Amino acid sequence: MALIVQKYGGSSVSTTDKIRRIADKVKAFRDQGDDVVVVVSAMGGETDRLQELADGLGAEPAPREMDVLLSTGEQVTIAILAMAMDQTGVPAQSFTGWQIPIVSDDVHSKARIERIESENLRQALDAQRVPVVAGFQGITEGNAITTLGRGGSDTTAVALAAALDADECQIYTDVDGVYTTDPRIVSKARRLDKVTFEEMLEMASLGSRVLQIRAVEFAGKYNVPLRVCSTFDEGPGTLITLEDNVEEPIISGIAFTKDEAQLTVLGVPDQPGVAYALLGPIGENNIEVDMILQNVSELTDGAPLTDFTFTVHTGDFEAAKALLEKSAADLGARQVSGESGVAKVSLVGVGMRSHANVAARMFKALANENINLRMISTTEIKISIVIETKYLELAVRALHDEFELDQPPQKVESELTPTDEQS
Amino acid sequence: MALIVQKYGGSSVSTTDKIRRIADKVKAFRDQGDDVVVVVSAMGGETDRLQELADGLGAEPAPREMDVLLSTGEQVTIAILAMAMDQTGVPAQSFTGWQIPIVSDDVHSKARIERIESENLRQALDAQRVPVVAGFQGITEGNAITTLGRGGSDTTAVALAAALDADECQIYTDVDGVYTTDPRIVSKARRLDKVTFEEMLEMASLGSRVLQIRAVEFAGKYNVPLRVCSTFDEGPGTLITLEDNVEEPIISGIAFTKDEAQLTVLGVPDQPGVAYALLGPIGENNIEVDMILQNVSELTDGAPLTDFTFTVHTGDFEAAKALLEKSAADLGARQVSGESGVAKVSLVGVGMRSHANVAARMFKALANENINLRMISTTEIKISIVIETKYLELAVRALHDEFELDQPPQKVESELTPTDEQS
Repeated sequence: MALIVQKYGGSSVSTTDKIRRIADKVKAFRDQGDDVVVVVSAMGGETDRLQELADGLGAEPAPREMDVLLSTGEQVTIAILAMAMDQTGVPAQSFTGWQIPIVSDDVHSKARIERIESENLRQALDAQRVPVVAGFQGITEGNAITTLGRGGSDTTAVALAAALDADECQIYTDVDGVYTTDPRIVSKARRLDKVTFEEMLEMASLGSRVLQIRAVEFAGKYNVPLRVCSTFDEGPGTLITLEDNVEEPIISGIAFTKDEAQLTVLGVPDQPGVAYALLGPIGENNIEVDMILQNVSELTDGAPLTDFTFTVHTGDFEAAKALLEKSAADLGARQVSGESGVAKVSLVGVGMRSHANVAARMFKALANENINLRMISTTEIKISIVIETKYLELAVRALHDEFELDQPPQKVESELTPTDEQS
Repeated sequence: MALIVQKYGGSSVSTTDKIRRIADKVKAFRDQGDDVVVVVSAMGGETDRLQELADGLGAEPAPREMDVLLSTGEQVTIAILAMAMDQTGVPAQSFTGWQIPIVSDDVHSKARIERIESENLRQALDAQRVPVVAGFQGITEGNAITTLGRGGSDTTAVALAAALDADECQIYTDVDGVYTTDPRIVSKARRLDKVTFEEMLEMASLGSRVLQIRAVEFAGKYNVPLRVCSTFDEGPGTLITLEDNVEEPIISGIAFTKDEAQLTVLGVPDQPGVAYALLGPIGENNIEVDMILQNVSELTDGAPLTDFTFTVHTGDFEAAKALLEKSAADLGARQVSGESGVAKVSLVGVGMRSHANVAARMFKALANENINLRMISTTEIKISIVIETKYLELAVRALHDEFELDQPPQKVESELTPTDEQS
């Protein structure tokens, strides 16, 4: 008998009919002896409807009141699902964020959970009732309603699983798991049975947006086994766990983003404070910076100079370039250059740590396709490159083939391990 | 500087545009130095939308969860109105039932308020913020969400006014006050400047449904001056107060209901327990009984017999008749008769207490129109008659003329007082 926290997103609960099917699904888990806590989002479309109501007022709404408004979305779903559960013969009890309570900080619209008191939930479980919990919402110490930001229901589910020491947290969604890359680009893309928290974090932030990144961080921090599955299809989904539980392939997946822009300052004096002087104004204007690279400095005419490169979203390119040109001129840099419409491709895999030569294989595969690399950046478990967007699909397919991601990991590992161990 | 509790109903807050106008209205009160607490209902149509969601599940929903669902309606309104207030430059703070808290019993869907803790509201008022409170909802000692039943927002407003010792509780609605009778039937119907709680109670329960009857009871109990006004038209509305503040006309208004049915048991043995034997089964089947009459018993063949009459809603006529026939047979009664499609007309006025002859004037006016009376029942401040429905409009107009209700009360009183004091 396991304790499972299940989270169903907006598209899984968009109609009363779908909610009834979820009630049946939860009942099936109960019938096989599991205890279940259910976390739900607002019914699909509801959050947008509420947002439009506020937009109807014209001016920017008070964030405190926006949270009061938006939190009603999940409250509607918990009531309907609890009713539907009752009707299947499995007694249920709905819980808003404040009824648990899920205590958060007071940063309205993107609050962070500070603690969860699990006693009320445990009482419901002990009384054989299924707790049906509103995701995405919390309450401050001062009794104000907060929301955790869009998609925050994943975080609620993981945090509850941690607080209740649940055996597994299952996130039900439209897709049946995490794939090696986007199946729309690589038809042979394969569903991963397992992936590590770290890999999932790298993939989530890079474009495979199956899970809220904060939820994955939380799950990793508290070691909550996290499973992504399809709501209305059978299947094991993808289990996200700590590294040592996983059979390690070298590469788990290929993430990518389009719509990047690259900005470079050439010949900037290499002295303390330069990075801040260049990026400070960018950040102050709420432009998000992704990759940052600085080359080693080279001595010319006695003054050490360096090149400084970073990427932003295409939409921020012109604004960022204007800010950068001003800072670069102040610093006496030689030149500012930039290129919009580039793409980033990342190989992600904890196996890289113990397998050398991955970067070389990656660059060779891309060279074979005549794809020029504009930028390279690596972490322990990720190699990211920036290329022209027109080569994106070609690059992803070439890398998917090179690392045989369509094959189950055991096979890849057994084939490659000898080679790698020799190197 | 007064403290005013204002309540705006669903049709007054049915669009964001109307909500903005209410924000302006509240601001005007604040600008003239009043402190205001606002209570709102769900946006018009929202409660029905939520009800339909629950209906979509098919079976009868759990009452506890129905309250969780319905209470979101008012929560949406408080958020939008608080945002709109902020945008007028008057800071506001929304309050759900549990945030105040308004503590109720645990009878879901028709909970009664047990106590209100006013500290949080006072803090908001002290900080010059306008509290915007969700009507219709409360919280049990066990932290479950309750609702006070449809229209319960009036009760919330009155209860808050009592808890805060407010100077006045203003109920804003579609109509500009309480009328002597329905203006659709008597075009000369006049808006009352003042009416007593007792009169309002008799009128509310009899068909002039401007105010929730429980709200009026509450206002009377705690002596909260209650004013009914139009949301979007200027005007003083109608003030509902204790008797001694009011210039007393004999008759304040004429209430009426159609769709009544009359049931009579003839020749029932007059012995203890008969009323219970006849009405018990009716009540157990959730049929509401309105007027009840029992004639004095008459001795026939030594056994005292009596006639017993009561009214129910037309929709319950057949069911009530079947139940009654069974009980009557058990008691050995002579006969059960009944008539569906009758109407009740009531003269209401605290002035009756000190003015005799009102009943005689009433019966004479009806006799002049050849209207036959099927049933008569009186209280201290009300005379009700049951007549055939087809005579309803005629009876109301005749009585409105007879008691000159189109004239302001001073005039009526001065004309009539000498006559009455002689009698």
